[in-house]
Amino acid sequence: MTSFRFALAQFDFPVGATHANALRAKELADKARDQLKASLIAFPELTLSGYPPEDLLQRPSFLEACAVELSSLAPRIEGIAAVVGHPDTRGEVFNAASLLRGGAVEWTYHKQALPNYTVFDEKRYFRAGEHSRVFEIEGVRVGMLICEDIWEAEPAAHAAAAGAELLLVINASPYDSRQAATRERLLRQRATENDVAIAYVNLVGGQDDLLFDGGSLLVQRNGHIAARAPSFEEMLLAVEFDSASRSLKAIDWPETDEGDPHVVMYAGLVRGVHDYVCKNHFSGVLLGLSGGIDSALTLAIAVDALGADRVTAVMMPTRYTSDLSLHEAKAQAEHLGVEYHVLPIENIYESFVGTLAPVFEGRAPDITEENLQSRSRGVLLMAMSNKTGRLLLSTGNKSEMAVGYATLYGDMCGAYAPLKDLYKTVVYDISRWRAGIDGAIPKAVIERPPSAELRHEQTDQDSLPPYDELDAILERFIEGEQSAEDIIAAGYDDATVRRVIRMVFVNEFKRRQSAPGPRVTTKAFGRERRYPITSGWR
Amino acid sequence: MTSFRFALAQFDFPVGATHANALRAKELADKARDQLKASLIAFPELTLSGYPPEDLLQRPSFLEACAVELSSLAPRIEGIAAVVGHPDTRGEVFNAASLLRGGAVEWTYHKQALPNYTVFDEKRYFRAGEHSRVFEIEGVRVGMLICEDIWEAEPAAHAAAAGAELLLVINASPYDSRQAATRERLLRQRATENDVAIAYVNLVGGQDDLLFDGGSLLVQRNGHIAARAPSFEEMLLAVEFDSASRSLKAIDWPETDEGDPHVVMYAGLVRGVHDYVCKNHFSGVLLGLSGGIDSALTLAIAVDALGADRVTAVMMPTRYTSDLSLHEAKAQAEHLGVEYHVLPIENIYESFVGTLAPVFEGRAPDITEENLQSRSRGVLLMAMSNKTGRLLLSTGNKSEMAVGYATLYGDMCGAYAPLKDLYKTVVYDISRWRAGIDGAIPKAVIERPPSAELRHEQTDQDSLPPYDELDAILERFIEGEQSAEDIIAAGYDDATVRRVIRMVFVNEFKRRQSAPGPRVTTKAFGRERRYPITSGWR
Repeated sequence: MTSFRFALAQFDFPVGATHANALRAKELADKARDQLKASLIAFPELTLSGYPPEDLLQRPSFLEACAVELSSLAPRIEGIAAVVGHPDTRGEVFNAASLLRGGAVEWTYHKQALPNYTVFDEKRYFRAGEHSRVFEIEGVRVGMLICEDIWEAEPAAHAAAAGAELLLVINASPYDSRQAATRERLLRQRATENDVAIAYVNLVGGQDDLLFDGGSLLVQRNGHIAARAPSFEEMLLAVEFDSASRSLKAIDWPETDEGDPHVVMYAGLVRGVHDYVCKNHFSGVLLGLSGGIDSALTLAIAVDALGADRVTAVMMPTRYTSDLSLHEAKAQAEHLGVEYHVLPIENIYESFVGTLAPVFEGRAPDITEENLQSRSRGVLLMAMSNKTGRLLLSTGNKSEMAVGYATLYGDMCGAYAPLKDLYKTVVYDISRWRAGIDGAIPKAVIERPPSAELRHEQTDQDSLPPYDELDAILERFIEGEQSAEDIIAAGYDDATVRRVIRMVFVNEFKRRQSAPGPRVTTKAFGRERRYPITSGWR
Repeated sequence: MTSFRFALAQFDFPVGATHANALRAKELADKARDQLKASLIAFPELTLSGYPPEDLLQRPSFLEACAVELSSLAPRIEGIAAVVGHPDTRGEVFNAASLLRGGAVEWTYHKQALPNYTVFDEKRYFRAGEHSRVFEIEGVRVGMLICEDIWEAEPAAHAAAAGAELLLVINASPYDSRQAATRERLLRQRATENDVAIAYVNLVGGQDDLLFDGGSLLVQRNGHIAARAPSFEEMLLAVEFDSASRSLKAIDWPETDEGDPHVVMYAGLVRGVHDYVCKNHFSGVLLGLSGGIDSALTLAIAVDALGADRVTAVMMPTRYTSDLSLHEAKAQAEHLGVEYHVLPIENIYESFVGTLAPVFEGRAPDITEENLQSRSRGVLLMAMSNKTGRLLLSTGNKSEMAVGYATLYGDMCGAYAPLKDLYKTVVYDISRWRAGIDGAIPKAVIERPPSAELRHEQTDQDSLPPYDELDAILERFIEGEQSAEDIIAAGYDDATVRRVIRMVFVNEFKRRQSAPGPRVTTKAFGRERRYPITSGWR
């Protein structure tokens, strides 16, 4: 018995970029062979199409392109075997992995477990496979699995029963703040119940509202985690499998910084902004900088993602804007070295009010006038985005999105919302952590009471419960699917709970028109939480 | 052998309104018993929850409420049996129909075929049933089916094999312009292949981006369509089944107006606006009236849906607005008798341009300035919506949505977009047809060349191919999933086809933030067509 060496390609394979993905697979295979001396390389799930390709999978020309790339790739993979993910069309479409070896496609495995919950719609696109696949390489029998296969017991058990000494799982498993722990628990269980080691390789990168975190893993057959790859970084990982002990060993994997969950989440937010902007070919970003914590954190993320020279911040004051806001916004922009503009909106606001005066005669000021300020800012920022080609970031957080404390076509303007899935209390946590590194976020911004500054001496708590209470209720209601009665029974104020839940329901229309943003919780607004706008249920 | 009489309840059962839906079922059962002398009444699919309840089905409290309504309803259904649709929770959740008879739930059938394509996500929510259900009433054996069950061959065949003399299908089948013909073809096939008559009852009403058209059907066992109920109208339909001949007879069904597809589509658009506005508790609507055909048709639909006194039209001219636009907008508003305002936007536009001058210095005017006009209008309309509580209708059509010929946060502002799924050529067809009835749309508006009037002497054809060519390409690309090569091979200009397809791909980000609107084609933007924004595929 000897050992055999293989490589896990923890890389980004962008959605739709079939040809570029095939080229990247070829390059990485060459590198794994030459530099790592690997005899096998495994790429993430749906390597060639990217994940999730969504309804591109319903275009015959897209499926054909994936098939062509696979066929052209096979003879170009030389001196190494490669496991490549791709959609496979045989009358119906399968989520597949093929082994390219000896210049040809040796076999194609079809994913057996298709997730059709939370963010996944795989039963919309794929037919489930019905057979395991165990293949031999360097005298070792390897069981092939794709992502969801490992979340059910049967596929691993069947592969083990068919003699697999090692399970190889290729994945496109999205990040959320609890996912790494869940994955480890699951993999430990599958390893021990089948007495088999597992090599788990995951995609990296931002794709619309999903983040893929990498975090590839090696698990011994006794359930011990032998190695963890860093999150949100692309890397080629070498692994050695020892046939005698049926154990895995990581070769020169970098250290990971797992102690602090802030590190991982922040890295995900940065990656999300970077990938959304770059994959959509924007030259940079701009955002409204208000002197509040949301835009301050968004600015820090943008600079970390793109560099200061690709970021523009715009302060758009009114009579309600405090000196503190003006001062701190400017201070942060200067500290970070970004382009900074001050565009007062009083004239614009007055021209709206003047134009509307004939139709608003006799009606008292209300939320309308507050929204006019927010929308004047939105129009200015969109004009700057149009003129400069920089993408507008929206700065809203999950607490606001939940209860509708945001103006549609106002501060909700923007192509991407980095904080969309962060509750306000998490915005504070992450901001404190980020500020602690190098003062990228001013201390005064973190410590001031939150305010939209749309009227005199306004604070968020005029309209909303304190954020720690609000967020606790929201998390129970949204992530926990708890009812009002459940939440009240847990000790929260009856009237507050009912008011918050009502706000969540009636603001579905705003969320439906909101920008995408990176998912970091176990239930994000968007594809993961599909609620009717029109609903009699309260 | 005798005959037996039953009723089909072609009605709206709004999503989430569990208690109101149970009350309505009780009232209709009483009416069917007393006025129609029916011994059975059948309600549409998921009667109690409404369809589609989407992720409300993941709330335990919602499922519990449906169960409670079913239990409370059973003893209140007296002197008649009732087939009621509802989610049924037994560890997992099923899409179910129960027979309420003799004061109790006699049995519960679980839908066997779960659609998970186009607009449907039923495998996200439901587990499939595995058994047919044939029940006896008045000596007749009736096979129970739910919607998708009839789209597959097995469930009907199993029910027939179990002795069903009649198939009863309860449905929530969404409208599109081809669906009625498809349904009839399918029902004829199932009837003849099983030699069994079919009674098909369908939901009515608008639910976010879906329209349910009713159009209930009776099909003889030889495949002959015995009766068609009108589309988009609520009604209680009496049916007699003759045991000797195993044939169905409609009792006093109203005449239907099937000759002209415009009638049905227009009725759907009117129903869509009515239901969206009323179910979401708005007092009325407002819209920007430009003098162009899209807003003119939208205004006519709004008035037909809600009455003139619940509709406000606003003309917002600039120097680029033609006299024709000013004249025709006013003429239409007066003809229809709606509240009408003229709010020039020159001052607002100038205040934006002035504020932006320092940052735009040295840059030539471009699309930015056109968008500023559109966004100034959007902000004005949203202010009027906020102040008056009237819902803003967006007036864009499918051709514009497809190629991005619309301003995000500008003319795309609005809670509901009645023409969202109508190609521009269909907007013309329907407008001509509607104008022909009573001149609700001015002839000059229909005949003028289309223009956004955002710069001097602009027409749509400065930027776009002629609409008949554009729409033909779009329909092949979107509904037909054809590739550029396919479309070019069909005789369209190479460069035009590639340009149009590119525009469709790169404008996904706009569509993602667009208002919902009623689906009328076989592939509508939104839940039916799920494309990545970020994509390397062109």
